[in-house]
Amino acid sequence: MQNQDTPVISFIGNSGSGKTTLLEQVVLRLKADGVRVAVIKHSFHGFEMDHPGRDSWRMTQAGADIVVISTSVKVAVIETVSEEKSLDEIIGALPRVDLILTEGYKREGRPAIEVYRSETGKELLTGAINRLAIASDVKWDVGVPCYHIDDVDGVVSEVKKYAARAGAVNG
Amino acid sequence: MQNQDTPVISFIGNSGSGKTTLLEQVVLRLKADGVRVAVIKHSFHGFEMDHPGRDSWRMTQAGADIVVISTSVKVAVIETVSEEKSLDEIIGALPRVDLILTEGYKREGRPAIEVYRSETGKELLTGAINRLAIASDVKWDVGVPCYHIDDVDGVVSEVKKYAARAGAVNG
Repeated sequence: MQNQDTPVISFIGNSGSGKTTLLEQVVLRLKADGVRVAVIKHSFHGFEMDHPGRDSWRMTQAGADIVVISTSVKVAVIETVSEEKSLDEIIGALPRVDLILTEGYKREGRPAIEVYRSETGKELLTGAINRLAIASDVKWDVGVPCYHIDDVDGVVSEVKKYAARAGAVNG
Repeated sequence: MQNQDTPVISFIGNSGSGKTTLLEQVVLRLKADGVRVAVIKHSFHGFEMDHPGRDSWRMTQAGADIVVISTSVKVAVIETVSEEKSLDEIIGALPRVDLILTEGYKREGRPAIEVYRSETGKELLTGAINRLAIASDVKWDVGVPCYHIDDVDGVVSEVKKYAARAGAVNG
């Protein structure tokens, strides 16, 4: 497994809290620092990648277990699975990166940034959550740093701090 | 490499010859026989998978080297590359399958089904091509079986014959 020691940080939070937008900004900053990043998104609903009529969709519909589209700038691999892959399985198959960020996977108990927005009308997540920090539009005092949801630098600092502890990225 | 001995057959031919349509039908038949198939499509032009606005696109644009979308039925892995991967590299990273079919990759010299349609106004492909058979709307006599382009059974029989010789799929 090439990413055995690669730090993994999960961005978790209720639907509508803004995980994708924050993660996008965090990736931008990390990339500017030359960090090689993988993002793994856990998606429960419709699959956003593969659409009726596209060649890849046609091959999947016809029964291809795996469809690969390769160009000079990107390679996409779409695998049909009979049950959802675990995060460990996914990580185990990835090329080597410096840092892995997940969107979702709150049940996997990885070190997490919880993203919160009050307009969701929800509370913070419950359960065995290993929070590094919170990014929120309201202040939470639950024993971990709480950054404003727009404070990307603050969130990135926590990501880097954790990654540096794990020995992969300079803090 | 899990697919070291997996037979690989390329569907090659000029643009507009109908490779995708034929391949789709071939996959359907193979799947009905329980064959585990991977399709690898070589794409020169715009990348068909990843579109502006989608989450995966946003992450790729932000600089994520790898984006994974995982659901209970499919896993998509999109990797940004600095140069095109070779067919061998792609095959080497795939989960184990019974048979690999490529669309394109005529220069790799793999055993091939050449797909031809006269309305393309082109000749058969030239170069070091290892043809198993031709699927065409006109008859070609070049020393390999020539099936009508709609004769999916004929093409499948050639695919199975080759795969059986390679020891992977019952002919």
